[in-house]
Amino acid sequence: MNPIGVTERTELQRLPERGSRDPEIIHAVLDAAFLAHVGFVSDRQPFVIPTLYGRDGDTLYLHGSAASRTLGVVERGIATCITVTIVDGLVLARSAFHHSINYRSVVAFGTAHAISEPARKTRALRVISEHLLAGRWNDVRGPTRQELAATSVLEFSIEEASVKIRRGPPKDDEEDYARSTWAGVVPLSVAARPPVPDPRLAAGTELPAYLSTVRDTWINASMNP
Amino acid sequence: MNPIGVTERTELQRLPERGSRDPEIIHAVLDAAFLAHVGFVSDRQPFVIPTLYGRDGDTLYLHGSAASRTLGVVERGIATCITVTIVDGLVLARSAFHHSINYRSVVAFGTAHAISEPARKTRALRVISEHLLAGRWNDVRGPTRQELAATSVLEFSIEEASVKIRRGPPKDDEEDYARSTWAGVVPLSVAARPPVPDPRLAAGTELPAYLSTVRDTWINASMNP
Repeated sequence: MNPIGVTERTELQRLPERGSRDPEIIHAVLDAAFLAHVGFVSDRQPFVIPTLYGRDGDTLYLHGSAASRTLGVVERGIATCITVTIVDGLVLARSAFHHSINYRSVVAFGTAHAISEPARKTRALRVISEHLLAGRWNDVRGPTRQELAATSVLEFSIEEASVKIRRGPPKDDEEDYARSTWAGVVPLSVAARPPVPDPRLAAGTELPAYLSTVRDTWINASMNP
Repeated sequence: MNPIGVTERTELQRLPERGSRDPEIIHAVLDAAFLAHVGFVSDRQPFVIPTLYGRDGDTLYLHGSAASRTLGVVERGIATCITVTIVDGLVLARSAFHHSINYRSVVAFGTAHAISEPARKTRALRVISEHLLAGRWNDVRGPTRQELAATSVLEFSIEEASVKIRRGPPKDDEEDYARSTWAGVVPLSVAARPPVPDPRLAAGTELPAYLSTVRDTWINASMNP
């Protein structure tokens, strides 16, 4: 992210020790997740839509059906906010007030534009696919011309972004530490269970190497509390 | 949710077989998750902020620091969109085009209002706390008058909501089923690992019963593919 602008949109207002605009940290959080929530405004109404994404430098790629309302509105180059959140744990304090969660969250602002050129579209789809599951793209049938035409692909250039991270144990008021209430962290992560073959899998098809390593804490184990 | 309005905001435009406005399904998805992404508009700029929530009927409760920008803007009664997404699996098809994810997602529209009366505020905080971890509230020191004053609590009445669900194996083009590409689903869920005690835990404090049952697939095991 070079250089990231800073306006009041990302000025860190609360608990600034949890916040940063460090591009390396922002990239690391974006790379550790795969689901974004995209916010945009249509007729004054805010919409928040979940979507997969891929990252290449300071560009995020999104895709969906060409008929989707989300992409139809967003690709007109309107102001967009993309937020990515990873929950790392429940923070259980001795007081209700100091309960929290450990998390990593990026809020990015920018505008999205449709990619129309087929080769660039295919390249962007590959970025999204490899972001989700590295190694998969070369294993599958690539998109046909018709499939490409039916797919909207958006390029979102991050103009400005911030990241917030909370980690570690609860922070209680000094006088509460003597309480006998259990306090600590319940670590959470996204876990993958063993892959379930399609009932119509062709006989003799083996699990590829990039899936054989799938195991618990596969998705967001890095940077955990 | 009775009755849920239906305007073009929640009219299901794509793949309507995945969508529903059934209040029972909407409630079930809202109850299976604990993190929402809240969208609102400030000076024409969309913002999407992650936050915890609790549900009581068709009301969602949110909370945060009274100094937080999010809540300060949202509590003015402006149009708000709250989206909750649970990812249940990666859907790996034989063609790039038919890749997808299994998920459950609720998009809810409404307006939020600040709760000022201390007893109602405390009750709403209890709803959020019990939503996150049932049994916790009675175990902790409740909020003081000063802590309540420092906490913004918002009440969001769902005016309109829809839920989308995708589950099951990939759907490939008929001619692709003969391919030897591995296809199927990688099930994903949020998993809790064993609770980590606070380094300053009072001697002899035992793990409460509501935490001893924490285990893998604790959070969103229900309704999995």
